[in-house]
Amino acid sequence: MKPLLFGSHIDSVRGGGNFDGDVGSMSALEVMATLNERGVKTRHPLELVVWAAEESNYGSGLHGSRMAAGLIEKGEFDRVQNGVSKRAAMKKLGGDAERIAEARRAPASFHAYLELHIEQGGRLDRAGIPIGVVEGIVTIDDYDVRVRGFANHAGTTPMAERRDALVAASQVVLAVQQIATGEPGAQVGTVGQMTIKPNAPNVVPGDVEFTVEFRDLDGAKVARLGAALKQHCVDIARATNTEIEVIFTSRHEGASATASVQAAIERAAARLSLRTMRLPSGAGHDAQAMATLGPMGMIFVPSVSGISHSPRELSRWNEIALGADVLLATLLELDAS
Amino acid sequence: MKPLLFGSHIDSVRGGGNFDGDVGSMSALEVMATLNERGVKTRHPLELVVWAAEESNYGSGLHGSRMAAGLIEKGEFDRVQNGVSKRAAMKKLGGDAERIAEARRAPASFHAYLELHIEQGGRLDRAGIPIGVVEGIVTIDDYDVRVRGFANHAGTTPMAERRDALVAASQVVLAVQQIATGEPGAQVGTVGQMTIKPNAPNVVPGDVEFTVEFRDLDGAKVARLGAALKQHCVDIARATNTEIEVIFTSRHEGASATASVQAAIERAAARLSLRTMRLPSGAGHDAQAMATLGPMGMIFVPSVSGISHSPRELSRWNEIALGADVLLATLLELDAS
Repeated sequence: MKPLLFGSHIDSVRGGGNFDGDVGSMSALEVMATLNERGVKTRHPLELVVWAAEESNYGSGLHGSRMAAGLIEKGEFDRVQNGVSKRAAMKKLGGDAERIAEARRAPASFHAYLELHIEQGGRLDRAGIPIGVVEGIVTIDDYDVRVRGFANHAGTTPMAERRDALVAASQVVLAVQQIATGEPGAQVGTVGQMTIKPNAPNVVPGDVEFTVEFRDLDGAKVARLGAALKQHCVDIARATNTEIEVIFTSRHEGASATASVQAAIERAAARLSLRTMRLPSGAGHDAQAMATLGPMGMIFVPSVSGISHSPRELSRWNEIALGADVLLATLLELDAS
Repeated sequence: MKPLLFGSHIDSVRGGGNFDGDVGSMSALEVMATLNERGVKTRHPLELVVWAAEESNYGSGLHGSRMAAGLIEKGEFDRVQNGVSKRAAMKKLGGDAERIAEARRAPASFHAYLELHIEQGGRLDRAGIPIGVVEGIVTIDDYDVRVRGFANHAGTTPMAERRDALVAASQVVLAVQQIATGEPGAQVGTVGQMTIKPNAPNVVPGDVEFTVEFRDLDGAKVARLGAALKQHCVDIARATNTEIEVIFTSRHEGASATASVQAAIERAAARLSLRTMRLPSGAGHDAQAMATLGPMGMIFVPSVSGISHSPRELSRWNEIALGADVLLATLLELDAS
C-alpha cells in the first residue's frame, strides 16, 4: 500500500507570526503521537513530512516540497541573495545542491497528501466556521523590477535634470496597485520588498530594485497582469528618464485540490459535527508542489481577523485542536478508501 | 592679529565620489606646505581646519563645524541610527559628547573663514569658467516621515482591506516631487533614504520610514514647502487608511558670503587672469556654520557635468590646481586687508 503523507512547513517569514506552517507541522506530530498512543493500525503507512523554506527566498518559495517534486527552477542554485548563492546557503545548512535529485519523490508514489494550515485570510473567522476545505491554490507570478536612474547631489541637481530612481519606482508601485484593482475579481498585486541605493538623505536615488507579485486562481489572468506591468514600466521609464527592467523570476502554478480528498475532509468534519466551508487559497502552499505527484487536499483553520505574516497573526487554540481532530479523522477516512 | 581659517571637510556620503570635501582639505594642505616652502610670512596666523562628519548623519550634517560654532541641536546626541546613539558613536571614535562645549570657537575670533569646494552642480562646467565665487548657501529643512500601515499576507489580504504603507509612501514621494516642481524657482525636494518593514516579497509592507529635504536660498519658501508636505500627508493618510507622521528634524540656516571676502576672491582670480562667476550654493557647507561666527567666503571649482554624491563625481586636476592657486592668493589678499 502507498503511504499517506501529511504535515506542513516549519519556517516563517521575517516579521511574521507563530502559526503559519507550525500549526500544520505540530498538529501532524500530535496526530501521529495520538494514533501511536491509541495503538491504531492503518492500512496505509503514515508518513509525516515537515517542509523547509516554504516562504519566498532567492526569488521563489516552496523550496522543500519543490525539491521533493523535482520542480527545480532554471539556475535556481546560482541565484544570489545578501551576497550568498543559494548553493552556498544550502551547503552552510548541511545541504548539497549537487545531490538534490536524490530527494525527489516518484510520481504516484503516495496515496494522498494532506496538509492542515491556517487560512491567513478572514473568511472563516468572519463566518464563524471552524473548518475550511480548500478548493485550490492561486497561481503566483514573481517579478524583479530594476530601476536605473542617476545618483546625484540632492542640493545641486535641479529638479528638471534629475533621473530619480525612487520617483520612478514610486510610480511603478502605484501602477501595480492600479493594475490589481482596475478590473473585477479577487486578483492581488504587491510590492513587498525594495532596495534603494545609495539610500542617503541628501542623494538623489540612483538605483532602486523591488519585487512585484500577482496572484489569482486564473493563471491566464495572472500573466495578463504581468504584461500590463511591463507596459506601465515602459511609459514610466520614458516619463522619468530612467531605465526600468522587469524580470520574470518565477511562476508558482496553482493547483486544484483532489475532489475525493475534499470529500474525505467533509465526511471527517461531519462525523465530528463541525461546519465546513469550501474556499480557495490566496497563499501558496507546499500542497501545490505535492499536487504535481498525486492526490492532494488541505484543511484550513481560522485566522483571527485574517491577519497573517505579521506578529499579530493568531489562531485560537481550540480551533487549532478542532483542525487537528479533522486532520486525524480525514487520514482515517483516506486510509479506508 | 586674529587667525585666517581655511580648509574643508574629509568625510564622504555612502556611494559618493572622491572630490566632495577632499579637494578643499587637500588644497589647504598644499597651500600651507607651499607657503612654508617659500618662507612666506603672513600678518595673520594661518589656521588649517579639516572638518569631520559634514555629510548628513543622525538627521543633520555639518557636525564638526556646528560643534565649533556651538550650534548643537536639541537632543542631538540622543538620536539613534542603526541601533546606536550619536553619543555612543562619538565615543567609539574617541569623542566625548559631554565635553563638546570645549570645542567651541568664540564669535569674532577669526579674521575670515575661507573654503575651497567642488561646485557639485553643472553651472561652471557648462559655462567653461574655472572659478566660482559663492554668494550664499541655501537653507535646508530635513524631515523624517513615518508611515504606519499594517503588515499582512500578500496572497490572502484583498486589495480593498490592505493598509499598505509602501503604497502610501509612494504617494508621498510623488507629492514631494510635485511640491518642488509646482512653482517657479530653483527650490528642490528629495526623498533619498527609505526603510521598509518587514521588506519581504510576499508581505504587504506595514511600516515605511523615509527622509524628505527641501532647499532654497529663501528660508521662508523652504518652510512653506514643508507645510505643503504635511497637508499632502494628511490627505494621503486618509486615502490609504494609514497613519503618517511628519517630523521636522532640523533646519540648516543658509548664509550669505561676506562681501569683502567675495571681493578678495575676485581680486585674487583677476591677478591670476582667471574668469570667475558669482553663484549660489545649492549644497550645505561647513562655511555656513562658520558664517555665524565671522566673515566667510567660498571658492568653487567645476564639477564635470555637475555630477556629485556619485562614484562618477569628477573635477579635473588642472582646474583643482587653479582653485588651489586662487585659495592661496585669496589668503594673501585677506592677510593684507
